[in-house]
Amino acid sequence: MLFFVNDYGEGAHPKILEALTKKNFDQVVGYGNDPFTLSAKERIAKCVGVKKENVFLLTGGTQTNTTVIDSLLKSYEGVIACDSGHINVHEAGAIEAFGHKVIPIKGINGKIDSALLNDFLEMTFSNPSLEHCVIPGAIYISFPTEYGTLYSKKELTSLYEICQKYKLPLFIDGARLGYGLASKENDLNIKELASLCDVFYIGGTKVGALCGEAVVFTKNNMPNHFVNIVKNHGALVAKGRLLGIQFDTLFTDDLYFNISNNAIICAKKIKEALIKKGYRLFIDSPTNQLFPIVTQEQEQKLKEKVGFEFWEKYDEEHNVIRFVTSWATKMEDVDKLIELL
Amino acid sequence: MLFFVNDYGEGAHPKILEALTKKNFDQVVGYGNDPFTLSAKERIAKCVGVKKENVFLLTGGTQTNTTVIDSLLKSYEGVIACDSGHINVHEAGAIEAFGHKVIPIKGINGKIDSALLNDFLEMTFSNPSLEHCVIPGAIYISFPTEYGTLYSKKELTSLYEICQKYKLPLFIDGARLGYGLASKENDLNIKELASLCDVFYIGGTKVGALCGEAVVFTKNNMPNHFVNIVKNHGALVAKGRLLGIQFDTLFTDDLYFNISNNAIICAKKIKEALIKKGYRLFIDSPTNQLFPIVTQEQEQKLKEKVGFEFWEKYDEEHNVIRFVTSWATKMEDVDKLIELL
Amino acid sequence: MLFFVNDYGEGAHPKILEALTKKNFDQVVGYGNDPFTLSAKERIAKCVGVKKENVFLLTGGTQTNTTVIDSLLKSYEGVIACDSGHINVHEAGAIEAFGHKVIPIKGINGKIDSALLNDFLEMTFSNPSLEHCVIPGAIYISFPTEYGTLYSKKELTSLYEICQKYKLPLFIDGARLGYGLASKENDLNIKELASLCDVFYIGGTKVGALCGEAVVFTKNNMPNHFVNIVKNHGALVAKGRLLGIQFDTLFTDDLYFNISNNAIICAKKIKEALIKKGYRLFIDSPTNQLFPIVTQEQEQKLKEKVGFEFWEKYDEEHNVIRFVTSWATKMEDVDKLIELL
Amino acid sequence: MLFFVNDYGEGAHPKILEALTKKNFDQVVGYGNDPFTLSAKERIAKCVGVKKENVFLLTGGTQTNTTVIDSLLKSYEGVIACDSGHINVHEAGAIEAFGHKVIPIKGINGKIDSALLNDFLEMTFSNPSLEHCVIPGAIYISFPTEYGTLYSKKELTSLYEICQKYKLPLFIDGARLGYGLASKENDLNIKELASLCDVFYIGGTKVGALCGEAVVFTKNNMPNHFVNIVKNHGALVAKGRLLGIQFDTLFTDDLYFNISNNAIICAKKIKEALIKKGYRLFIDSPTNQLFPIVTQEQEQKLKEKVGFEFWEKYDEEHNVIRFVTSWATKMEDVDKLIELL
Repeated sequence: MLFFVNDYGEGAHPKILEALTKKNFDQVVGYGNDPFTLSAKERIAKCVGVKKENVFLLTGGTQTNTTVIDSLLKSYEGVIACDSGHINVHEAGAIEAFGHKVIPIKGINGKIDSALLNDFLEMTFSNPSLEHCVIPGAIYISFPTEYGTLYSKKELTSLYEICQKYKLPLFIDGARLGYGLASKENDLNIKELASLCDVFYIGGTKVGALCGEAVVFTKNNMPNHFVNIVKNHGALVAKGRLLGIQFDTLFTDDLYFNISNNAIICAKKIKEALIKKGYRLFIDSPTNQLFPIVTQEQEQKLKEKVGFEFWEKYDEEHNVIRFVTSWATKMEDVDKLIELL
Repeated sequence: MLFFVNDYGEGAHPKILEALTKKNFDQVVGYGNDPFTLSAKERIAKCVGVKKENVFLLTGGTQTNTTVIDSLLKSYEGVIACDSGHINVHEAGAIEAFGHKVIPIKGINGKIDSALLNDFLEMTFSNPSLEHCVIPGAIYISFPTEYGTLYSKKELTSLYEICQKYKLPLFIDGARLGYGLASKENDLNIKELASLCDVFYIGGTKVGALCGEAVVFTKNNMPNHFVNIVKNHGALVAKGRLLGIQFDTLFTDDLYFNISNNAIICAKKIKEALIKKGYRLFIDSPTNQLFPIVTQEQEQKLKEKVGFEFWEKYDEEHNVIRFVTSWATKMEDVDKLIELL
Repeated sequence: MLFFVNDYGEGAHPKILEALTKKNFDQVVGYGNDPFTLSAKERIAKCVGVKKENVFLLTGGTQTNTTVIDSLLKSYEGVIACDSGHINVHEAGAIEAFGHKVIPIKGINGKIDSALLNDFLEMTFSNPSLEHCVIPGAIYISFPTEYGTLYSKKELTSLYEICQKYKLPLFIDGARLGYGLASKENDLNIKELASLCDVFYIGGTKVGALCGEAVVFTKNNMPNHFVNIVKNHGALVAKGRLLGIQFDTLFTDDLYFNISNNAIICAKKIKEALIKKGYRLFIDSPTNQLFPIVTQEQEQKLKEKVGFEFWEKYDEEHNVIRFVTSWATKMEDVDKLIELL
Repeated sequence: MLFFVNDYGEGAHPKILEALTKKNFDQVVGYGNDPFTLSAKERIAKCVGVKKENVFLLTGGTQTNTTVIDSLLKSYEGVIACDSGHINVHEAGAIEAFGHKVIPIKGINGKIDSALLNDFLEMTFSNPSLEHCVIPGAIYISFPTEYGTLYSKKELTSLYEICQKYKLPLFIDGARLGYGLASKENDLNIKELASLCDVFYIGGTKVGALCGEAVVFTKNNMPNHFVNIVKNHGALVAKGRLLGIQFDTLFTDDLYFNISNNAIICAKKIKEALIKKGYRLFIDSPTNQLFPIVTQEQEQKLKEKVGFEFWEKYDEEHNVIRFVTSWATKMEDVDKLIELL
């Protein structure tokens, strides 16, 4: 059975397991004050171009989203997100659980359009009933988006200008950041991306780690008592070494970026084959998620030999399905998939 | 430097790292539906004497406490805990973050006394102002407690009778469960403990795992939509395999219990040495945490060669310190410590 | 200056002030256990056709919405509302403050369409990712809606069938209930309305009271410890007499219904005049709110002599404005307004 | 039946009812922007010595406590209160409902001792585990306390110095403020009290109003978007006039202070009689609540002719009961009570 279901089907990059094993009996303090975490923070900080005090390691995506967003907002504020944004649809209410409304704004290909955002904010802040409304306190986007699309440098610059105009921090969910940065159609490097937002996270879980996301506050703006906020969210890990060793490894010798490339090369090959074979694409994603439109017959047949996800119904005869590649995808599996298409 | 600071200073038991490495490229589904997690649940369920549907794997202690407690309570209910209970003092308000008061009750050696609990509940539920009060909705205890002490079978039976009398679920925080069960002074096995509560967790982080706690609902009483509650708390792990493989390993060939013994044997040896050398103990703990009273001079001298925690001031000249042993403590380090005492 | 700004511009119906004054020095117990509240509950219960234990008096609309909704939902559940529903746009996040997502569904003239609701629920509950989503736990509608529109008996019956099919309680926000029931186009009486939902409230603030809303659970389904939930929301009034005397008066000799008629008669007269004079209506509201489309010139001129609200921009030259009538509107003011149109 | 049950048994001072009636048909805007509210704010501001922008009118005590405290705290902070403080025992978890722990500190006669507070804060902020704790973000006291006791000017000065040293805002719950200020043993006037805290409220519900509490931020420190915070708590009243007219009346010609005197004069007479007749007092309260210790026989006999509250069991033969006087207590009832003692 070929596996194109998601990008978290395997364990970790072997170098991570090696490092975990090698350092296993080093005795270190807990809660992220260990030398591995400190080293990981330094490496990430250097890569991104910030001071190491601005980096924090957390375990998973939902946890990171809810913790960061709560740290940005006052009690009566909400966070603006694209209607298809992860926090609006697939976090089971984790943002609201901490008292904050997710304010949805209509997305275009999974992205927030800066002009629409500007209109929305202008309308909101000039609303005579503002006292009866949830006040926007931050903007959330994902890079790549849930549809695999990317903001261009121009788009992100424009979006960030709006955020700054309204003094609203911009938070970028980078659960699949590596794959976004590795895309041939991407024109942003990690330092540029960092400069165009207030906080973002570098996804580890989907890019070679067993677990872990690295939050980076980009403007020396980590909230006071951030560790308390993390703990208050039930998110402070006792054995910080688990996260520290993983990110230390991922940010040694560009491992994070190198393994991200693999997913993109694999996805590109599948995408070209899909187009060549006449499939239509539901969304033209330049990253590691592909959304071909298939007949129900094709879907049934593929299912026998390939693991993938049903995405949504397209019309009476067609469905949209999703293929995902990752750091661990083997080119031979890609070739086998292409044969089956 | 000898390490007696805590029981989470090392990584994981080598068998866990071996299993993680061996199964690393098995491609499995996410979010705890993988075969490793299913196998772990089966092994735990068999060990505890429940059905596997009652077991759920989470990442850390705070997360587990806040998720389980929230799942037990209605919005207006609070959870009763010993005043020294972890959720009352060291969870940074994670229980309150989900809207629930921790109702403290005076502890005796870190334990809730069943007679005091009965009096408190009788007074509470007969209070004519009950409509103005937080209604108790669950009882939280830890086994071992934060002071390393244990409930005897008689004490737990008596406590659970009170809980049942008032229809209040009893939740046992077992962050150090292995060490409690391994204590020579313990008279409860895991099945008995399970029968004397409604839900408990088997701590992995402090007992040989990199991370992970296994929640067990003991009366076929896992709340509806428990996975949503977990996700809503930001606690659903994408790569469930990380938890699954660890607990599958820990519950194969009694590994969890065997490695717990080591901590107890080491602690016992230190305790006997302490007593022999004339140290007083602040609390007579039968598990892996020891609380000797030392002069400030002794403390300073020890500090040069031994890692331990300052616990609290005892009097003008003495402090209480804490030595902790674990699954990973080496007997040779114990001997070196004893020499230094 | 004529006043058509809203329906809460005046104080209370004179009979309410008389009753408050007359009973002012009666010494009664607090927190809603006073004889006036008991009498009010009995009168409301009789009028609606339920037992008096199902009635509860609260102070204001937001408070009532957040308290009732929180009482209906489990921690991980959300409430479905029309996208234009009050709780989705004008409660400043009060629902989310208690941890619950407002799940918006596209409205038609301010109403939830039962077929759309059915589709949405079918899709939601069959979603393989349900564990990652907010689970709908209740449905919220308003009667009349924020646009002054009404559900017909057929529409409400159909909607309630969907709710029952999915075992979701239906909550009707009746902030302007009196005006809805008094409308000539309404075909529901209060008992029918009660039978077609699980809980609703009878708005007092906008219909003759100084403050106060009467919640009615219609199926003997008042949640356990509802008073604690109210108190927990900061909503339990010490001098319950204030609410009790008001509702006791409003439900004596059909006062509530009689004064509601006045608003409808006045609104109808204005509406007929608007149509006769060639104004277009943005929404064809059969209750006490009217939404004419006016030129900006007309708007400016009217403003000099009439108080009303700007509603929204219609096109480059036209705006939608809102006229509101109430129990207190005088026919002579209506006539003066018509002259000015 | 004589009524000494509480201080909210009657309606409102007749002047309030007169004013409500007189201004009943004045048409005004809602949500506290009406001229009555503005006038009330001006009068209160002048009386207290602040600018009128620092005054806000709310409906009830719990609502005020939960709204103000939430406005003072960051998400991960808690509020320190005396263990017998209202928010710790009788708010049904309303503070925790918004995510904040109430951190109890041992009280002395219902008051926080400044030396104990200093010790507690010193210990807390020097705790090496501070990242695992709830961080104190504000201090809550009541004046008078729940036991009727008062802080002297010296005590409050000392307490406020500690608060300032730790940069923690001090919030004074003045549900019975009038009675505290009117006490013969009180040495603080309202301006001094205001200068010795950061925010306090002037209780109306228990001092002559139908409902209402006036919050005063004393250092031009009303939180940004305070109205949104109020609304978010479900506490924004549509007919602000109800609160405005009441406080406007109470702060005209010192009505608030004059009617408070009545309660104190009555209480003093009862207290002297109690002492003269040999009763012991459980707490020596200088305000409008008295706590005599009576035999169960005395209690039973009194009950036949007097309404009062059972407070708590004193010993096997004695109970503590509570007599409360108010602005509305008649001296002839006081005399009748004294005869019965």
